Amino acid sequence: MSIVGHLINGELVADNNRTQDVFNPATGVAEKQVALASKQTVEQAIAAAQAAFPEWRDTPVIKRARVMFKFKELLEQNVDQIAKLIGQEHGKISHDAAGEIQRGIENVEFACGAPELLKGEHSRNVGPNIDSWSEFQPLGVVAGITPFNFPAMVPMWMFPLAIVCGNCFVLKPSERDPSSTLFIAQLLKEAGLPDGVMNVVNGDKEAVDVLLSDQRIKAVSFVGSTPIAEYIYATANANGKRCQALGGAKNHAIVMPDADMDNAVNQLLGAAFGSSGERCMALSVAVAVGDKAADTLVEKMSTAMQGLSVGAYDTPSNDFGPVITCQHKDKVVGYINSAEQQGANIVVDGREPNVEGYDNGFFVGATLIDSVTPEMESYKAEIFGPVLQVVRVKTMDEAMKLINDHEYGNGTCIFTRDGEAARYFSDHIQVGMVGINVPLPVPVAYHSFGGWKRSLFGDLHAYGPDGVRFYTKRKTITQRWPSSGVREGVSFSFPS
Amino acid sequence: MSIVGHLINGELVADNNRTQDVFNPATGVAEKQVALASKQTVEQAIAAAQAAFPEWRDTPVIKRARVMFKFKELLEQNVDQIAKLIGQEHGKISHDAAGEIQRGIENVEFACGAPELLKGEHSRNVGPNIDSWSEFQPLGVVAGITPFNFPAMVPMWMFPLAIVCGNCFVLKPSERDPSSTLFIAQLLKEAGLPDGVMNVVNGDKEAVDVLLSDQRIKAVSFVGSTPIAEYIYATANANGKRCQALGGAKNHAIVMPDADMDNAVNQLLGAAFGSSGERCMALSVAVAVGDKAADTLVEKMSTAMQGLSVGAYDTPSNDFGPVITCQHKDKVVGYINSAEQQGANIVVDGREPNVEGYDNGFFVGATLIDSVTPEMESYKAEIFGPVLQVVRVKTMDEAMKLINDHEYGNGTCIFTRDGEAARYFSDHIQVGMVGINVPLPVPVAYHSFGGWKRSLFGDLHAYGPDGVRFYTKRKTITQRWPSSGVREGVSFSFPS
Amino acid sequence: MSIVGHLINGELVADNNRTQDVFNPATGVAEKQVALASKQTVEQAIAAAQAAFPEWRDTPVIKRARVMFKFKELLEQNVDQIAKLIGQEHGKISHDAAGEIQRGIENVEFACGAPELLKGEHSRNVGPNIDSWSEFQPLGVVAGITPFNFPAMVPMWMFPLAIVCGNCFVLKPSERDPSSTLFIAQLLKEAGLPDGVMNVVNGDKEAVDVLLSDQRIKAVSFVGSTPIAEYIYATANANGKRCQALGGAKNHAIVMPDADMDNAVNQLLGAAFGSSGERCMALSVAVAVGDKAADTLVEKMSTAMQGLSVGAYDTPSNDFGPVITCQHKDKVVGYINSAEQQGANIVVDGREPNVEGYDNGFFVGATLIDSVTPEMESYKAEIFGPVLQVVRVKTMDEAMKLINDHEYGNGTCIFTRDGEAARYFSDHIQVGMVGINVPLPVPVAYHSFGGWKRSLFGDLHAYGPDGVRFYTKRKTITQRWPSSGVREGVSFSFPS
Amino acid sequence: MSIVGHLINGELVADNNRTQDVFNPATGVAEKQVALASKQTVEQAIAAAQAAFPEWRDTPVIKRARVMFKFKELLEQNVDQIAKLIGQEHGKISHDAAGEIQRGIENVEFACGAPELLKGEHSRNVGPNIDSWSEFQPLGVVAGITPFNFPAMVPMWMFPLAIVCGNCFVLKPSERDPSSTLFIAQLLKEAGLPDGVMNVVNGDKEAVDVLLSDQRIKAVSFVGSTPIAEYIYATANANGKRCQALGGAKNHAIVMPDADMDNAVNQLLGAAFGSSGERCMALSVAVAVGDKAADTLVEKMSTAMQGLSVGAYDTPSNDFGPVITCQHKDKVVGYINSAEQQGANIVVDGREPNVEGYDNGFFVGATLIDSVTPEMESYKAEIFGPVLQVVRVKTMDEAMKLINDHEYGNGTCIFTRDGEAARYFSDHIQVGMVGINVPLPVPVAYHSFGGWKRSLFGDLHAYGPDGVRFYTKRKTITQRWPSSGVREGVSFSFPS
Repeated sequence: MSIVGHLINGELVADNNRTQDVFNPATGVAEKQVALASKQTVEQAIAAAQAAFPEWRDTPVIKRARVMFKFKELLEQNVDQIAKLIGQEHGKISHDAAGEIQRGIENVEFACGAPELLKGEHSRNVGPNIDSWSEFQPLGVVAGITPFNFPAMVPMWMFPLAIVCGNCFVLKPSERDPSSTLFIAQLLKEAGLPDGVMNVVNGDKEAVDVLLSDQRIKAVSFVGSTPIAEYIYATANANGKRCQALGGAKNHAIVMPDADMDNAVNQLLGAAFGSSGERCMALSVAVAVGDKAADTLVEKMSTAMQGLSVGAYDTPSNDFGPVITCQHKDKVVGYINSAEQQGANIVVDGREPNVEGYDNGFFVGATLIDSVTPEMESYKAEIFGPVLQVVRVKTMDEAMKLINDHEYGNGTCIFTRDGEAARYFSDHIQVGMVGINVPLPVPVAYHSFGGWKRSLFGDLHAYGPDGVRFYTKRKTITQRWPSSGVREGVSFSFPS
Repeated sequence: MSIVGHLINGELVADNNRTQDVFNPATGVAEKQVALASKQTVEQAIAAAQAAFPEWRDTPVIKRARVMFKFKELLEQNVDQIAKLIGQEHGKISHDAAGEIQRGIENVEFACGAPELLKGEHSRNVGPNIDSWSEFQPLGVVAGITPFNFPAMVPMWMFPLAIVCGNCFVLKPSERDPSSTLFIAQLLKEAGLPDGVMNVVNGDKEAVDVLLSDQRIKAVSFVGSTPIAEYIYATANANGKRCQALGGAKNHAIVMPDADMDNAVNQLLGAAFGSSGERCMALSVAVAVGDKAADTLVEKMSTAMQGLSVGAYDTPSNDFGPVITCQHKDKVVGYINSAEQQGANIVVDGREPNVEGYDNGFFVGATLIDSVTPEMESYKAEIFGPVLQVVRVKTMDEAMKLINDHEYGNGTCIFTRDGEAARYFSDHIQVGMVGINVPLPVPVAYHSFGGWKRSLFGDLHAYGPDGVRFYTKRKTITQRWPSSGVREGVSFSFPS
Repeated sequence: MSIVGHLINGELVADNNRTQDVFNPATGVAEKQVALASKQTVEQAIAAAQAAFPEWRDTPVIKRARVMFKFKELLEQNVDQIAKLIGQEHGKISHDAAGEIQRGIENVEFACGAPELLKGEHSRNVGPNIDSWSEFQPLGVVAGITPFNFPAMVPMWMFPLAIVCGNCFVLKPSERDPSSTLFIAQLLKEAGLPDGVMNVVNGDKEAVDVLLSDQRIKAVSFVGSTPIAEYIYATANANGKRCQALGGAKNHAIVMPDADMDNAVNQLLGAAFGSSGERCMALSVAVAVGDKAADTLVEKMSTAMQGLSVGAYDTPSNDFGPVITCQHKDKVVGYINSAEQQGANIVVDGREPNVEGYDNGFFVGATLIDSVTPEMESYKAEIFGPVLQVVRVKTMDEAMKLINDHEYGNGTCIFTRDGEAARYFSDHIQVGMVGINVPLPVPVAYHSFGGWKRSLFGDLHAYGPDGVRFYTKRKTITQRWPSSGVREGVSFSFPS
Repeated sequence: MSIVGHLINGELVADNNRTQDVFNPATGVAEKQVALASKQTVEQAIAAAQAAFPEWRDTPVIKRARVMFKFKELLEQNVDQIAKLIGQEHGKISHDAAGEIQRGIENVEFACGAPELLKGEHSRNVGPNIDSWSEFQPLGVVAGITPFNFPAMVPMWMFPLAIVCGNCFVLKPSERDPSSTLFIAQLLKEAGLPDGVMNVVNGDKEAVDVLLSDQRIKAVSFVGSTPIAEYIYATANANGKRCQALGGAKNHAIVMPDADMDNAVNQLLGAAFGSSGERCMALSVAVAVGDKAADTLVEKMSTAMQGLSVGAYDTPSNDFGPVITCQHKDKVVGYINSAEQQGANIVVDGREPNVEGYDNGFFVGATLIDSVTPEMESYKAEIFGPVLQVVRVKTMDEAMKLINDHEYGNGTCIFTRDGEAARYFSDHIQVGMVGINVPLPVPVAYHSFGGWKRSLFGDLHAYGPDGVRFYTKRKTITQRWPSSGVREGVSFSFPS
């Protein structure tokens, strides 16, 4: 069985540490293994990055950017191959994987603009003949720790920008679906990146803890669940690093009575069930204002859901695939069961999907639950499965209170035609990413991604302008020149 | 004896908690006491701030800015009074205190530009008929914890910007010299700030720990020593707050052989001994490159130091005053002793200054120590007293290595006439604030203040553009409107 | 009779050139005269400005900004006096004049942020060890030529920003109402502005032509009618100056069938009749979509207009005052007559207002004309009087076509509740300043003011960020230092 | 003989208008002809651009940027072919042509960052519940008119940025060397640009005058000589267009006595003679401060010049090629003659270069003239040939006065090691692009290009951030929503 290894100093390497199975979630079969890096292996990666730093940092930014221009070309040429690797290990349907890769490429495109993004501020005459300016210098070696659900995109939220800013990078991707990430990293070498600037170590907590404690690592970016995010954030900070840690979510859409209901249903369909709901921006709760809106929504949604098909990644007509593991399937089904037991109404039931030829796959069908209330377990938790819950409220204020009271504040959306309702919502909702008739309000790559409350720890958001600031440190220079014989002509004899 | 209390919800209050002496360091006499806030008192302040937040946040930014315009006027009208309060409790000479206040006012001037500073980024057509923009919204209630050495300026690095961004503030100033800070805070009310937006609690660790743990506090800015900064940073972060914590420093000036030596000595005089060296930007180590430069420097410096006079705050001809406490005086003298014992050469000895009429004052005279080496205790520590140490090296690279190896990276300076030396230095030195022939390279208020390495914990610097980012959270809105009967004219009968 | 003179080099001066009457438009009596500067006088002003430039340019920007901080204080202290001067010569009611002054002050507030606004862009390592940065340096002497309708505000769109950027200024205000402008300029001296930096010359075409041709004038800002704007723009450009020239307007509001009609009427009332409609942003055409909307609008508007009162400036209960001259009154009445003759319906007729005690005043009452069509004279021209015309169309597209086909493109507005209609409108309308339920969409001082099409000649808008760019020229410096004996230690003996 | 035609609406077309010879300047033979567009042909191009505009403008900016990403790839793949076309018609040596193309590509790289560059400014709550933001919308159809000396680079200063901003473009390149420009434009179609967005018309004044007068053209960018620039600027402005027109230059380098003389000579060699001195940034005057510096400079320079070789484009060991036309060769030689006659010293004489096998080529050899004075014809004019003149002065102030008194202010440079001299120079010199030890201080593509005085007419510089502003118009939207039944829940029955 093939073993997925590490990329250190430009070379694929394996160490003699532990390994772990990598499953194809559609078949339920472990077709590969992934190496779990030892402390020593991680330290080798860090050392390689550290060694590459001085020269990379001094490479003019336009040359660093040109590596990203080439990297974009290579990514575009390899979309199918990357999508296949994602499909095999994550289960995502090929068109969905291609979409993920495209979003990743957009971050590379943004990184190509580094010369503009890294400009400092220059002030002439802050005092008489005194000038002052700022430079945004790279940090050194920085690390990324990324989740299984976007093995291509989330790493590309991080390393292109970090690297183009002049840093060297050590990435620890998810051990569930490591192959696409590793493949992508290898393209960087082909794009002209010097060895050692980008390194990938596969692994688990052993590897993570080295990244969190080693003094050579200057910054850590993390995306994953909230409890882990909190651990990462506290540990990295206590070790003197800067850190941004993105955690969980529970994204609500308010459906107003004046909404264009067909449009809302259409939008919600992809936002709730796409990628089996395994997205931190998945729209998992629809809050309908007024029973009439709720009834219409539930009726139209259940009709529309009949057209959805769940299955393996390589059948493009499928809408979404399996969830990531057997355990996770059980957890999702458990939440549906608990909702049922706590009195909610299972309108469309995906607990026993029939996926022909994939009896052992980790499939859950699209599920719609009506009359969910905030006290239910299924409401409180981030289910991370293809489950859309409907909560019924009487007023928009009630809907907003629900959202503002939730511990998470990642994404949210309102469906309405009304300018005032939209503006009041976007102004006052305690959520970092807000959609107006846009159920997955993921900021484009030239803005920044980040939730509020317990969805993000740190003060700077991921990628975009905040990403640039995160991966650089400010240096402010103040300059005054004393009176000069050279200019004033008193020392023409010099130099003798 | 008068007791300095707290400012909560626009009112001066005292609680029945403990108190502590406030000394006049020139006389050594405790002339006042300061209240040390209980947990309950701090929570009252937080509650007042929390209550004031919703309305203040919704106040248009230009109106918030106008409070700062008025505040600037009031500060300028009260410079003498504030300087006197600083002098009485801190010991700083009146002209030096006036300078500190002026630097504080500059931060208020910067805050007046808030409408420009808070602009978000707007993108039309991020997709077909989809727009996206960012808003920088206030955090809520934020806290500042500030040191004794700049009781006026350092708080004004924080609260003007935090408040003008729409936050409410709880400030815990140093309990050593609380009166000027409290006085300044009261001017805000006169400037039109609504009650509760700005609050001051005097106190010690009891108060600090409430600020670090209370869930209503969203961010903490701290300036002080590195060990405390680390504690503050780790604790605040572990409690889910954002935090920036500025710590200690050991600022070196490289004196190159081509430097304009008279200019260098002139500059160093103020930078080393001003405010008794009790500044985190004090220039405490001169690294002379080549013995000739060292000899010239020591000779000219010791001559120049003869003109310095140490004494009480209210004699304007004095150059600097006492250090803050008796204990601190002993500590400073102890470092000089240790240097002497470890083989350094005490060229000018300030251990027994003669300040007539102030026998019990905490005075240390200006001290120059030559031939200091990196192993000495006096080199390693931040002395925070009027002591300039000279280290002799052979090359500029050796000088830079010394600086880069030090645990702190706050400020540094090079004295040279040579463009290339200056540029190489500013590019490669591992320090956040760099001076070229400027020994105190404190960034002006419209840039940002921050050291590197163990001089600052956090990713955003203090005040200036980084300060704005620190005191706001990014919200990104993505908007699409569904097809509209109103525009397309199909529903003219509406609304009936 | 008193003669309003010039302000040159800090002194009020009169020359022996021609003079012209200044009327009180409420009484119709010429109570003052204004000096009309000769070529020689204008050249004296330019020379004074030229002489003041080198020192003012080298004054650190924060010190220049502090003059503006003080100027703001003085303006606020003198609002009543300035408003009175405006009222006496322009006729504007005191509350309206106070509003104008406030908008002017907002430009001064923006100018106070100059240190931030003048930052250049710094790039480290544009090539190996090569840095590059931009500076925005002042132009030298610049001129402003301003109209009668905002004698306080429009000059303050220009000179505060020009001056704070380091330029010296020569202002030629309207000769109709020169006193408030001259008074304001004098406050600058009190605020600490060095003599010669700000100069005012009153005059007519003789003065204007000197400003357009003198080689020492580097830039001209103009606000007035379109034919004059075109002349100014072509002439200034042909003489090698940069120029921005703002001309006329014809601002339409679309009233959609879903609009909140009471709100729309309320808003339109002030936008159409405030300041007698003598504003380049006056809302003079309401385009109602559908007859039902039109009927409702006309009915509610005519009712609301009954509450309006026209009269002299010093009765605060008046809503608006006379127009500027007898000739202008005749012109406005002429347009109403022509509309009537061409078939429009005069719903409310202001041609013969009864203003007791002011029989000779230049008054026109609020006038509402329904069923206006694009062919009518009154539609094509900028009436600049208290006249609101209603055009009836069947669809929103028809309404937008009307606006897009008009030669002017200054301001426009839509009244609707519908998000999609608003967004389609703001995206596609060919107008520079767009309101959504805001009938006077004058950008705030920290944005920029400018129309499209024949409403503005030039590429940069007035005030705000564009104003800063207009009043500065970009200098780009690229710097590399050759290998240095000083740093590399080969020439330690230097300097001998 | 082949005829170089036009590119209109995606098709290569020829019209039946006049033609003109295109010479190979190395052989002196006209090997091709170029079509000179008639008025009708130009109007076809404008019409094609106008037709393509609505859809292109509405294409999301990231999609427009992706055309530029692809265009960059294609340019890089075709460097040799483009360089060959340049060499054949312009005479530039292949490595020099490749350098030109590279600088052009850098502008395409900058254009790829359009999503970031086009962001507007968003302000929440400019008043209570009122928001305001700016958008930078494209102008429509814009034109470029470009010179012979950079047939690839200068057009790429313009059209990539104009197009990525959403405009459609009509380019009129130089009729002397049209083939490389046309080839490049064709690559855009291959890169995915819709037909009509980019059009090329070859021609002369007939074509230019259409571009300057046709009302559909909204902006004109021009690079050429100052007299033509003035004509273009005045005419375009008088026709209501925005215009930036870059003219001539006379770029001086000050050589200070402390300069690294070997470095200075090395740098000057390329800056003076590269591309036969036919660059608007060519360094054509060296101002030596002090006779010692002058003597050293002249001696070292004349030695270095012996290594230069002039010849045909396709021999890579050549340093530079012929000048553009026979007439231009005569003009350059005439200036050398006049200098000789007016008393200057021809140190190295290139009037009769021996280029074997190219007897009829338009060659001038590298020429060094010492002891030039400001009164000489050769000093006053822009020679645009491989001629370096040395002026001797006694002080740096004298050198700076020389530069500041010249009518042109494009580029300049100082050679020194002294920080103070460099800073004084860059601060006070009246030139738009300043080098410190950099003789060709052409700003990188992410800054902007522009001279001062009579070297540029307009307020915005070419390419970079100013280019973005030039190719867009600002729209400011102010938005308030009236109280809403939808949000407030009073109209839940709606819509029925």
